[in-house]
Amino acid sequence: MSLESEIIVSHYFLLMMQTLEQTHPTFLKLKSLLAEIEDIYGATSVLHWDQKTYMPSKGSGARGRQLATLNQIAHEKFTDGTIEQLLDDLVSYERDLPYDSDEASLIRLTRRDCDRASKVPTEFEVRFSRLQTDCYEAWAIARAEQNFALVQPMLERMLEMSREYSGFFPEAQHIADPHIEGSDYGMSAVSIRSTFAELRAQLVPLIDAISHQPPVDQSCLQQHYPEAEQFAFCQSVLKQMGYDSERGRQDKTLHPFMTKFSIDDVRITTRVYENDLRQGLFSTIHEMGHAFYELGNAPELEGTPLAGGVSSGVHESQSRLWENLVGRSRPFWHYFYPQLQAHFPSQLGAIPLDTFYRAINKVNRSLIRTDADEITYNLHVMIRFDLELDLLEGTLMVKDLPAAWNDRYSSDLGVTPTSDSNGVLQDVHWYTGQIGGMFQGYTLGNLMSAQFFDAAIAAHPEITDRIAIGDFTVLHDWLQTNIYRHGRKYTAAETLDRVTGKSLSTQPLMNYIRCKYGELYGI
Amino acid sequence: MSLESEIIVSHYFLLMMQTLEQTHPTFLKLKSLLAEIEDIYGATSVLHWDQKTYMPSKGSGARGRQLATLNQIAHEKFTDGTIEQLLDDLVSYERDLPYDSDEASLIRLTRRDCDRASKVPTEFEVRFSRLQTDCYEAWAIARAEQNFALVQPMLERMLEMSREYSGFFPEAQHIADPHIEGSDYGMSAVSIRSTFAELRAQLVPLIDAISHQPPVDQSCLQQHYPEAEQFAFCQSVLKQMGYDSERGRQDKTLHPFMTKFSIDDVRITTRVYENDLRQGLFSTIHEMGHAFYELGNAPELEGTPLAGGVSSGVHESQSRLWENLVGRSRPFWHYFYPQLQAHFPSQLGAIPLDTFYRAINKVNRSLIRTDADEITYNLHVMIRFDLELDLLEGTLMVKDLPAAWNDRYSSDLGVTPTSDSNGVLQDVHWYTGQIGGMFQGYTLGNLMSAQFFDAAIAAHPEITDRIAIGDFTVLHDWLQTNIYRHGRKYTAAETLDRVTGKSLSTQPLMNYIRCKYGELYGI
Repeated sequence: MSLESEIIVSHYFLLMMQTLEQTHPTFLKLKSLLAEIEDIYGATSVLHWDQKTYMPSKGSGARGRQLATLNQIAHEKFTDGTIEQLLDDLVSYERDLPYDSDEASLIRLTRRDCDRASKVPTEFEVRFSRLQTDCYEAWAIARAEQNFALVQPMLERMLEMSREYSGFFPEAQHIADPHIEGSDYGMSAVSIRSTFAELRAQLVPLIDAISHQPPVDQSCLQQHYPEAEQFAFCQSVLKQMGYDSERGRQDKTLHPFMTKFSIDDVRITTRVYENDLRQGLFSTIHEMGHAFYELGNAPELEGTPLAGGVSSGVHESQSRLWENLVGRSRPFWHYFYPQLQAHFPSQLGAIPLDTFYRAINKVNRSLIRTDADEITYNLHVMIRFDLELDLLEGTLMVKDLPAAWNDRYSSDLGVTPTSDSNGVLQDVHWYTGQIGGMFQGYTLGNLMSAQFFDAAIAAHPEITDRIAIGDFTVLHDWLQTNIYRHGRKYTAAETLDRVTGKSLSTQPLMNYIRCKYGELYGI
Repeated sequence: MSLESEIIVSHYFLLMMQTLEQTHPTFLKLKSLLAEIEDIYGATSVLHWDQKTYMPSKGSGARGRQLATLNQIAHEKFTDGTIEQLLDDLVSYERDLPYDSDEASLIRLTRRDCDRASKVPTEFEVRFSRLQTDCYEAWAIARAEQNFALVQPMLERMLEMSREYSGFFPEAQHIADPHIEGSDYGMSAVSIRSTFAELRAQLVPLIDAISHQPPVDQSCLQQHYPEAEQFAFCQSVLKQMGYDSERGRQDKTLHPFMTKFSIDDVRITTRVYENDLRQGLFSTIHEMGHAFYELGNAPELEGTPLAGGVSSGVHESQSRLWENLVGRSRPFWHYFYPQLQAHFPSQLGAIPLDTFYRAINKVNRSLIRTDADEITYNLHVMIRFDLELDLLEGTLMVKDLPAAWNDRYSSDLGVTPTSDSNGVLQDVHWYTGQIGGMFQGYTLGNLMSAQFFDAAIAAHPEITDRIAIGDFTVLHDWLQTNIYRHGRKYTAAETLDRVTGKSLSTQPLMNYIRCKYGELYGI
């Protein structure tokens, strides 16, 4: 037998083995039950999306009940012992599977999710689901009326329930850890505090140095940009960057987000400010980065807990990579700026590319996280992370949160909110999610985005040249192969190690920032 | 004790009794289970609405699975024996309740629904739910490509499953009766055939007589009416007629419909033709009529099977009443025509009200049901009803349906479709619902709309004068009191009897038609 036919035989054997594995009846039963649960969560995502896009205001009461009922059913199905039993029955089957295989990963991930979920009573999930709806509605009103007091009682209940949640994990080292574990598995309050301190120590002197340079003129961005035209330009950018309109769409919401109903229906939203070009533009690219990740999952992960992204940090690394390392780069605007000028000739026709590029990268101590530059952005995140911990630890009361928020903005960023809306009410997260584990992912994402981008460039140095001619496929394909297709198969630490050969580090981001902003500010 | 305090005491006693009744633990358990099921169906309605309004095309596969899973869960919860047992336990409790009470009606209706649902296996419901999604998608493509063959195999499966469904009701007199019972409880193929024959015998000579009159000039409606402007006018009509934008919204779809997610979230859709003013306008008022019904349910019916409308016929009576008896009337346009002229000055500025009124009421043998005038509309319905019965009886094959459709249009209406899109593909019903029980409700609705309107005018003769000044509240309140608030409490026959003192009759509609069109056509 020649070597070639040996290979063919063994390949065939492997395929056959895989087929046999896939038809293991217990495994199939597990997959089918998980698919049902995924269907229910897919439906809740549609209900959430509708609530934030098109639902008439008085629909919220029933929507809360519907979401609570669906969450209850899904949580019960996940934790009623059936899946636990199937997982137990699969222990010996799992032992013979390669760690990397879809089957082993599915069992491993399901066990992790199921262990966590089973600690939380269904009754809690239902109560929490209702609170999320009520608190979101109260936030929307409070934000419109610029009055934190209107949502304070709801947020107090949210904090209470977030603390109650932590109580289901008595083994946790810190009250925030169950929340952090939920969004960034493998991280903890201690490890994040240490990473953030290290990053902060490098950022603060840099921001100081920049603040001593002559201020950048940003006025070209703050002209009148009609909403419809901005939206049209964003649609055109999405199309050229490869966001498939047959598998997604973009709508307008109070707070931009990405949501997934299935691998072929991953939607994004944006908000557009008519007096500032940045919000619509960069939130569009940001959410598109999230969507790329979900759309790039291997199709065979659909309907299983393997579909999705590794963690909040890794997910953010993808949105921030596209938003910043691509979307705020010179090559990107070399390609897109003439198109932007054509969309807005009276506003930008006479503005040179370099002026525009400097304007969108202006480092500026400001009030709004989603408007912040790449550097100060991390200080916004750290403020929120610290306040979350203070609230959970009980050293800060909800009623004192607006003042604490404003104090931190004054001391850390040198600016003070003029109202609750550009202060403590600006982000939806605490009001619709929970308190805890909500913000650290953004800065973890910034760190990882630079690590991943470095690895991509090392593998394909032509990436930046390609971006300059509007070709995003090399970068996209690399991300697809190395990150997107694996879904939740690996942990964040495993992903970093597999893709970059290193663990989490502040150096790639700091190198990127020093290089880019050194050039921009001559420091 | 004075008489007055006796009344107070007995009123108090009644209230207390009601409270006691409401806290009957078995009854409360039933209500809570039913509310959960209503939540699931509410969620499926959101998923359906999204599928038809905003879903990207490739989202349909997963959407079908999600809908199938939710339908399966709801159907299982409804038919797993728990509700049946609760109903059995409530038999003696029910005996002491007044027939009209919410409690008795809830038990009565639930028993009826549960008996029907329990005959249908969950496995069938799941399979059928998947088919509905697939067939709808195939229809949308076939319709766009004007090619029935693209949906024929799906429709064959739809017919097969519709026949299979009938098989679950072996006691039925006619294969269509289980379908008809489902949408128009109390009616049957035999009773509808007889009513339709009686109506047809009166309509056909009238249409003949009109066709010998000089043709009405309809050209004022068939100018260019930009979509955005039409949509804006429709929104303004909705607002002035009392459709509450905090409890509903209007979107655009291939086929107009009304859908309800809860009593405070009842949405409508429309389609607008830029070369014909009628489609957008009258479909808007039509769907608004359906929405009024659902929005007008007594709030305490929410989350129970009592919420909704009596039957397909009674529901259509409300949409057709607002669309025709109000929306195609002189008083209505006395009020709205100046506004319409202001919206479309170049198209209608020089057109007198009388010309416009005659144009929107032109009797015309035409191809499209939803464009048809009030008289020939019923012939469109009868064609569909007969074809449904032929398909179910097996005397017509799906492959022969387009030809049979075209033949009937030629013989009954004297017009022949130029493509499948203005022929057999024009209505979504068979492709997303089922074959059987889909169309009779429209003509039953026309009959009842005239019966109800007569009763409303008898009670409040000022209604037409009020409409002429844009005040729709007297009519709306009367409908609310007499029909809307009761939801599904009474059968169609009971409703007719309670509201009009009569049973279903062709005379009120024929009187209305003879009077209105006699004046219009001078016959």
